[in-house]
Amino acid sequence: MNSFGRLFRVSIFGESHGLYVGVTIDGCPSGVLLNTNDFTPDLQRRKSGAKGTTPRIEADKPEIISGVFNGFTTGSPITILFKNNNTRSEDYNFNKIPRPGHADFVAHKKFRGFNDPRGGGHFSGRLTIGLTTAGVVAKKILQKISVEAKLTQVGGSIDIDNAIDNALKNHDSVGGIVECRVNGLPVGLGDPFFDSIESLISHAVFAIPAIKGIEFGSGFSAASMKGSEHNDRFIDHTGKTATNHAGGINGGISNGNELIFRVAVKPTSSISSAQKTFDFAKNQTTELKIKGRHDACIALRVPVVVEAVTAIVLADLMLISKSYL
Amino acid sequence: MNSFGRLFRVSIFGESHGLYVGVTIDGCPSGVLLNTNDFTPDLQRRKSGAKGTTPRIEADKPEIISGVFNGFTTGSPITILFKNNNTRSEDYNFNKIPRPGHADFVAHKKFRGFNDPRGGGHFSGRLTIGLTTAGVVAKKILQKISVEAKLTQVGGSIDIDNAIDNALKNHDSVGGIVECRVNGLPVGLGDPFFDSIESLISHAVFAIPAIKGIEFGSGFSAASMKGSEHNDRFIDHTGKTATNHAGGINGGISNGNELIFRVAVKPTSSISSAQKTFDFAKNQTTELKIKGRHDACIALRVPVVVEAVTAIVLADLMLISKSYL
Amino acid sequence: MNSFGRLFRVSIFGESHGLYVGVTIDGCPSGVLLNTNDFTPDLQRRKSGAKGTTPRIEADKPEIISGVFNGFTTGSPITILFKNNNTRSEDYNFNKIPRPGHADFVAHKKFRGFNDPRGGGHFSGRLTIGLTTAGVVAKKILQKISVEAKLTQVGGSIDIDNAIDNALKNHDSVGGIVECRVNGLPVGLGDPFFDSIESLISHAVFAIPAIKGIEFGSGFSAASMKGSEHNDRFIDHTGKTATNHAGGINGGISNGNELIFRVAVKPTSSISSAQKTFDFAKNQTTELKIKGRHDACIALRVPVVVEAVTAIVLADLMLISKSYL
Amino acid sequence: MNSFGRLFRVSIFGESHGLYVGVTIDGCPSGVLLNTNDFTPDLQRRKSGAKGTTPRIEADKPEIISGVFNGFTTGSPITILFKNNNTRSEDYNFNKIPRPGHADFVAHKKFRGFNDPRGGGHFSGRLTIGLTTAGVVAKKILQKISVEAKLTQVGGSIDIDNAIDNALKNHDSVGGIVECRVNGLPVGLGDPFFDSIESLISHAVFAIPAIKGIEFGSGFSAASMKGSEHNDRFIDHTGKTATNHAGGINGGISNGNELIFRVAVKPTSSISSAQKTFDFAKNQTTELKIKGRHDACIALRVPVVVEAVTAIVLADLMLISKSYL
Repeated sequence: MNSFGRLFRVSIFGESHGLYVGVTIDGCPSGVLLNTNDFTPDLQRRKSGAKGTTPRIEADKPEIISGVFNGFTTGSPITILFKNNNTRSEDYNFNKIPRPGHADFVAHKKFRGFNDPRGGGHFSGRLTIGLTTAGVVAKKILQKISVEAKLTQVGGSIDIDNAIDNALKNHDSVGGIVECRVNGLPVGLGDPFFDSIESLISHAVFAIPAIKGIEFGSGFSAASMKGSEHNDRFIDHTGKTATNHAGGINGGISNGNELIFRVAVKPTSSISSAQKTFDFAKNQTTELKIKGRHDACIALRVPVVVEAVTAIVLADLMLISKSYL
Repeated sequence: MNSFGRLFRVSIFGESHGLYVGVTIDGCPSGVLLNTNDFTPDLQRRKSGAKGTTPRIEADKPEIISGVFNGFTTGSPITILFKNNNTRSEDYNFNKIPRPGHADFVAHKKFRGFNDPRGGGHFSGRLTIGLTTAGVVAKKILQKISVEAKLTQVGGSIDIDNAIDNALKNHDSVGGIVECRVNGLPVGLGDPFFDSIESLISHAVFAIPAIKGIEFGSGFSAASMKGSEHNDRFIDHTGKTATNHAGGINGGISNGNELIFRVAVKPTSSISSAQKTFDFAKNQTTELKIKGRHDACIALRVPVVVEAVTAIVLADLMLISKSYL
Repeated sequence: MNSFGRLFRVSIFGESHGLYVGVTIDGCPSGVLLNTNDFTPDLQRRKSGAKGTTPRIEADKPEIISGVFNGFTTGSPITILFKNNNTRSEDYNFNKIPRPGHADFVAHKKFRGFNDPRGGGHFSGRLTIGLTTAGVVAKKILQKISVEAKLTQVGGSIDIDNAIDNALKNHDSVGGIVECRVNGLPVGLGDPFFDSIESLISHAVFAIPAIKGIEFGSGFSAASMKGSEHNDRFIDHTGKTATNHAGGINGGISNGNELIFRVAVKPTSSISSAQKTFDFAKNQTTELKIKGRHDACIALRVPVVVEAVTAIVLADLMLISKSYL
Repeated sequence: MNSFGRLFRVSIFGESHGLYVGVTIDGCPSGVLLNTNDFTPDLQRRKSGAKGTTPRIEADKPEIISGVFNGFTTGSPITILFKNNNTRSEDYNFNKIPRPGHADFVAHKKFRGFNDPRGGGHFSGRLTIGLTTAGVVAKKILQKISVEAKLTQVGGSIDIDNAIDNALKNHDSVGGIVECRVNGLPVGLGDPFFDSIESLISHAVFAIPAIKGIEFGSGFSAASMKGSEHNDRFIDHTGKTATNHAGGINGGISNGNELIFRVAVKPTSSISSAQKTFDFAKNQTTELKIKGRHDACIALRVPVVVEAVTAIVLADLMLISKSYL
């Protein structure tokens, strides 16, 4: 299923080289001011073209085909499309010789050979444009709550520029770390157990291709800490804490402090140097040189998508929270 | 909401010091051999009493009150209860002086003072008995697929025994790392985007209290790797790969290799030494000494719960996968 | 699945002759005053014992095992159990010779012989006690909105007493019509298409065994009417209409007028006179005389259950509606 | 929410006079042969132009923008669009003077004036093209199971032609009865209680505008019957019954006999003769003459939509049923 959310629900559809990719946002309240220009900044951040990103450049012009009237959301489902223009389908056919690290093999098996393999088909990172778009709408619902993600490391280094240069020089790719911080959240979003904020955010974050890990607050370093160090003591009547190892969450619920999490992004699977893989038609090992056009560091384009899925989760929780007051 | 799953759905309910805690498993196929003894091994693994765990010991005797007849599941919802016997409610009242690292503060705010604070109420780790119980049923559906989690580090050390001793000696607590490995999965479980295996497993795993992070395969170390290192090359017609940085997942879908992930468990929030916190009634900083009975290292009891939620997710995906063949 | 609702979700479980039947109510806001006496009036209305109802009488004493503390709901899942005391399992075994009009045949086939056949097992009308119980909680959320259902016809006659007497005299059973009216609803509950009020109420109403039809407002008679007769003209600024053929709903959404619908209840399938059926073991026609204890007119006990499921739907819609203001 | 279904999920979007209306079908298995011509027969049946239907005629040309590749479904979400060409927005503006029987009033209130009122906006019958389209895909999954609906009465008469003529002559509209029959269903689809076949079908059927009632099998006449008449006795080892008052369903589950239900369709709300209504701007009663273009008998176009939503429900149940074998 390609849907997520309880009251604010996002569904994405499309294939990399199909006619359109798109998104439907169901459950957005009526009366939200929305026009196509609102999407420009976040679409621009997601866009390729900069150093380390793929030379495939799409116009990324949103076509709002439903749910908006006279510049405001109507309360009906909002569907937004993006035309795929810049497709070179001759570059791809990996059903027989799947690319290492890609979904070619599993897609072919799961869908019994009927998947659209062109440009990764439905598995393409191109689909994240729908997430980004829905994130823009979600941020409007969040109003004064800020959601900001940025790239903090590439290839294990904070000299990000240099790490990208190295990867490009070596016809290789490189991973990175993205950190997301949310400020202005009220106390009380989320629930213990299955609807914890961590459950919902991680669910949404792992919808982004290439993400391999997520940690909240102190995260993996908490495993090496003592309780006396890790516990965040309360220092005032608002629930502010002296430290923030919890990352703004106790018992699955926002505690009013800054929400912080980090995600690990793997290096782009497509690299231009030759790789060994298996030829499933000839039943033998072979060597593959991927042509196509790819990002040397997909992590460069991930922050805005992390923001988007975080905003989608939080917008849903904000709407839900109103039900109980 | 306290439910999870699409065809195999688990709901948990209860409070630490209420009459019962329990679980309802909806969507379990009929004809699964099931009796109360089946739960013994996993309940035993979750149980306290060993060094580093709380001295509160419960009988943990499952009462199957529906969904099983003549030793087999009937196909109707299975509800299983556990009586709370060993409760000492005088130990707890933290609405005014919330314990650092606990859900006392958020629970009080979110539920406007109506939450049951005794022993953490609904937020208690006691509720994980329902997850463990559902996990036993899920494992039966998985048949030959094995799900095994174990504690690999405590307090940053692999000498786990020593780390626990230190924590106990210092009236402190300590975190740990749990690793889970699944073998025997078919190719094709999961979906790209919102129903990726990572999305579903992380959603379920963060339903376990005290978990701060999760990483699949190479996880956070992927962020420092190059594509040429990270890509797992296929080596035979089954899709076996030479390395397993992907942790058994490509494009959100199981690839038939071992599924591997690790979770970070924070140190238990309750420690017996004095801590600073805030007195919300007197509006001033205060010192708190928690009596009660607690685990010095909750991570000791987490592996079986991680197995359980993983099995719950995979059982659901196995049932779903049959629909499409 | 045995769950229903988006923010206010009700799940039922249990078998007629098992240990308990019960219900879990998830998503009830905290702070609702609730004690076991609150259930008495509606449980009493559902109870058997009167003329035309089964002589099987249960204590129907609710045991609230979670989600209520100090007399108020806590915001956590509320689970309520009812012990099955008065069971006579020797009366039943219909896997081989299924009773006409009952679920014996389909239950045996669907669950491959593993269903609990005692007293109808999970298919028993006994399960509606869970619906009734959840309805009481839902009505509390509805506050001043009144939901009232009553029996308006039995066996085609408004002389209900006489119709029951005839059925009893002839060792037969008889159907009836139940009408439900809701007053005090705000304008705006529901949605066009899949979440129309009619969709949600009919979904919930057909969860009650023995119901064969539902109609809103003018219902089936609308099929014989002209638009000029059927259209309800607005007569004031509140949206009040001169007539109410719409039954209080336009475009799937409450319009502030009285919500009205009627349901058809079939005659109880169990009758004490002999009936022809098929012996699936001997593969031949046979005659069956049902012993057991049954309602001559199950419709007598349906109104309170219709109220309950209606209240469940409306409580959910009321909570959802708050999200959008 | 505008979505329905558990494994086979249909979402509709769009407005009557927007750029497109459309549908997304998520969860369709891969490998289903599908091209735009497959939709022609059902779209043709839904189309207007015949006597008694609106003179607004749309090309109704489906544009499959995702989920189909090389003539087969891929297993990814299928989105299909229909351009709105033939729009005359000057005909409509009913926020101030709402049309009797229409959603104008509730839409304006619920969406706080932000709804798109042109042609009924999102509330338009135009949206049923998405249901019809999804129904075609669902029917392919059902294979040999036939779903057939037809109009059996108009304005209380079986002389349908004459009833339409009368309505047209009087500038009025008229209602009707649609009957749907499903043959070839296996025993065992559906569940007792909330997921009964009746619950699911009625839920989907009431998503069709203008429907006021539904009855299964004997339906409302069951309320006047005796158990000895109503019970369908089994006559062979397949579960065939001598009569079919149950309409093919026992205990919420298909019993292998023909599934039968009927729905009541109200007369079209838009009529060309003058009607009284309320002017909410001037706060006084007024007279309204609706221009626009409308169906004198919308029931004429309903059968194919009833088939569609029925097929959608059954396709979902067929996929679910495979999970349990």
